[in-house]
Amino acid sequence: MKPVKVGLLGLGTVGTGVVRIVEGHQEDLSSQVGSPIVIEKIAVRNIDKLRNIAVDHSKLTDDPWDVIRDPEIDVIVEVMGGIDSTKEYLLEALDRGKHIVTANKDLMALHGAEILAKAQEKQCDVFYEASVAGGIPIIRTLIEGFSSDRIMKIMGIVNGTTNYILTKMSREGASYDEVLREAQQLGYAEADPTSDVEGLDAARKMAILGSLGFRTDVELSDVSVRGISQVTKEDIAYAKRLGYEMKLLGIAERQDDEITISVQPTMVKQSHPIASVNGVFNAVYVYGEAVGETMFYGAGAGEMPTATSVVADLVAVVKNLKLGVNGLKAIIPYKTKKLKTDEQIVYKYFLLLHVDDKAGVLAQITQIFAEYEVSLASVVQQPNPDNPDAEIIIITHDASKASMDKVLKHFENLSVIRRIKSVYRVEG
Amino acid sequence: MKPVKVGLLGLGTVGTGVVRIVEGHQEDLSSQVGSPIVIEKIAVRNIDKLRNIAVDHSKLTDDPWDVIRDPEIDVIVEVMGGIDSTKEYLLEALDRGKHIVTANKDLMALHGAEILAKAQEKQCDVFYEASVAGGIPIIRTLIEGFSSDRIMKIMGIVNGTTNYILTKMSREGASYDEVLREAQQLGYAEADPTSDVEGLDAARKMAILGSLGFRTDVELSDVSVRGISQVTKEDIAYAKRLGYEMKLLGIAERQDDEITISVQPTMVKQSHPIASVNGVFNAVYVYGEAVGETMFYGAGAGEMPTATSVVADLVAVVKNLKLGVNGLKAIIPYKTKKLKTDEQIVYKYFLLLHVDDKAGVLAQITQIFAEYEVSLASVVQQPNPDNPDAEIIIITHDASKASMDKVLKHFENLSVIRRIKSVYRVEG
Repeated sequence: MKPVKVGLLGLGTVGTGVVRIVEGHQEDLSSQVGSPIVIEKIAVRNIDKLRNIAVDHSKLTDDPWDVIRDPEIDVIVEVMGGIDSTKEYLLEALDRGKHIVTANKDLMALHGAEILAKAQEKQCDVFYEASVAGGIPIIRTLIEGFSSDRIMKIMGIVNGTTNYILTKMSREGASYDEVLREAQQLGYAEADPTSDVEGLDAARKMAILGSLGFRTDVELSDVSVRGISQVTKEDIAYAKRLGYEMKLLGIAERQDDEITISVQPTMVKQSHPIASVNGVFNAVYVYGEAVGETMFYGAGAGEMPTATSVVADLVAVVKNLKLGVNGLKAIIPYKTKKLKTDEQIVYKYFLLLHVDDKAGVLAQITQIFAEYEVSLASVVQQPNPDNPDAEIIIITHDASKASMDKVLKHFENLSVIRRIKSVYRVEG
Repeated sequence: MKPVKVGLLGLGTVGTGVVRIVEGHQEDLSSQVGSPIVIEKIAVRNIDKLRNIAVDHSKLTDDPWDVIRDPEIDVIVEVMGGIDSTKEYLLEALDRGKHIVTANKDLMALHGAEILAKAQEKQCDVFYEASVAGGIPIIRTLIEGFSSDRIMKIMGIVNGTTNYILTKMSREGASYDEVLREAQQLGYAEADPTSDVEGLDAARKMAILGSLGFRTDVELSDVSVRGISQVTKEDIAYAKRLGYEMKLLGIAERQDDEITISVQPTMVKQSHPIASVNGVFNAVYVYGEAVGETMFYGAGAGEMPTATSVVADLVAVVKNLKLGVNGLKAIIPYKTKKLKTDEQIVYKYFLLLHVDDKAGVLAQITQIFAEYEVSLASVVQQPNPDNPDAEIIIITHDASKASMDKVLKHFENLSVIRRIKSVYRVEG
């Protein structure tokens, strides 16, 4: 049967993995889809760069348009990254009737709706399994595995860098700065780690998961984001003492038809399955009304795991090609998006306060919680080993963001509170 | 758009869940598939039985053939269980061009190949996600999520009853008999628990997973099976002391093109992700050559989780109906099956021996291991608190089944060994 011709944009880590799998598993792949899959052209930045994979030099070009405009090419696999120009390439490819597989979370989080709409118009496939959680087939699971269910909550450890840092801080009692430096040396964190450590990378992935899980159009600006750069080793030690692990969790939740999505460092009960996901591993916990608790665990990044997802998407495109049904199974969000108000955003909080070490302080503080109707699960006051203040450690029951914001504002103006040291979400 | 009509065989636990989801999520379902899904007829054993769900009495019949032969019905959802007569119903339904969704692991493990062949002949869909691990979409994951990869190992906790029993024995130091009785009272184990506790249920599921993972035709008789009824609380205590949890693991492994599939109580290193899957939960760990370690966790049984998978399959059938592509994505095993020989089946062993408490015994025993080229990772000899013998606890390095069988045979004839108390596979 006629081979399916693929144009590859990018031959970095993931692109190299894609070539390895397509070539190494060719027999398995063609047995499944009924024809060979051939990588016809590859766009790279520098044709003459030394690579740790042997590729036919004549397939390389440094102009992505060479690939996009090649009429022989059926499918574009985009693993070059980038946003604006990459979007242009892909829209043009769709205009030319080519199907798309992409690993580009930035692009899909920012312009997914536009790209998917164009794909629908042109009856083309756009698959992007590799954009979230690398090798874990979580997008398929949300679209197909749970098509019958009403998903109420998605919690994700979807950024390996921050999970590596927090795991290391937790295991070794090391500080954020130390561990970050080490992660950079090992290649687990980039020279400029901002997008990872400040939660932006996770937020992009959560926008994608939220859109799919709630079948609505979550935009990046709908996700509230806080990173891990302010998490101290003391915070982690408190968390552990209370039976929690600190994790950067993306959480997308729904109640009735209102949704909210956030990324923030969160204290997760140690008995929760996601609490024991360590190192660079990713996991996505999904709670469905009918199915209950589920969790999907695996490598969130890396050459071969990410390439596994890219090539699985490629197989899906080719199967659709054989059946002539590309673009016909597109998932179009059909629910109007309603974001929760601050009154509706409800969870448990951990607070660490440094206060004057004198009588009556605890009473004043608990009085303020009562005033804003925040009820407390536990309050512990103890001397602070490092300075003359006392520490108060509070875990609340479920409280609305609106109420907690008022409590915290009130605390800022309360003279007995020297410092609101830490505030974290608590899960489980 | 014209509604899709479903005939339901069985209205027990799962059937009730299916009705609940199809009715309760009707709006979500029809938004996805473009037409209403209607349960048209339901075959039950006793029409007049009191049920904890309200169903239109006129839809009930006590003759499954009424459902199979109804020309209005497009899809048969089989959740009645049974093997021989159920197979007849489904083959006839396929002959009449109806698509099938089934939760029947017994049927699929024993006659899956025949049913799938008939489906292919008739261009009908047969989906059976719910037959393995209830609400976990593991079949989809193996077929689609990892279509690009070469799966090397599948380890499953795929039977909730036995996992409940082992978890309880581990946590409470209770005996098998006590916990089994309690599980029966709670409805987690059947009055006749044989199929669960002797590993047959798990073996059926592993035959299905092995077929899909290795793209070959694994039969039930290819699975070697040992249940948990001989596991003692002492075994579990030893396991824990050495850093392991005892789990009934189904393991399907491949090396090059040779495969082997077994179900047996296994000591799993506590740090392995599958070791912390407790209670009635199920999990499937998949190791792919490219993707590496992944794990999928969730409820393995129960009304709503299992029904989630059944209805997700129903959605897939209806989407295919709309596109006119039913039966065209069938996964036909394309690899010739080669089972590993006993020389090729290699793993680590735990042994607990009761021996004469006298000098030289340990030397004799280690000499026998050496003779059959089984190398040892650790050997501990200690007095036995309960009787005058000594205990020897051995963990081997990887050893072939052929060699270990010889060692054990030799041990049986060795007078200093009073008893081979326990032998378990060790993982991780």
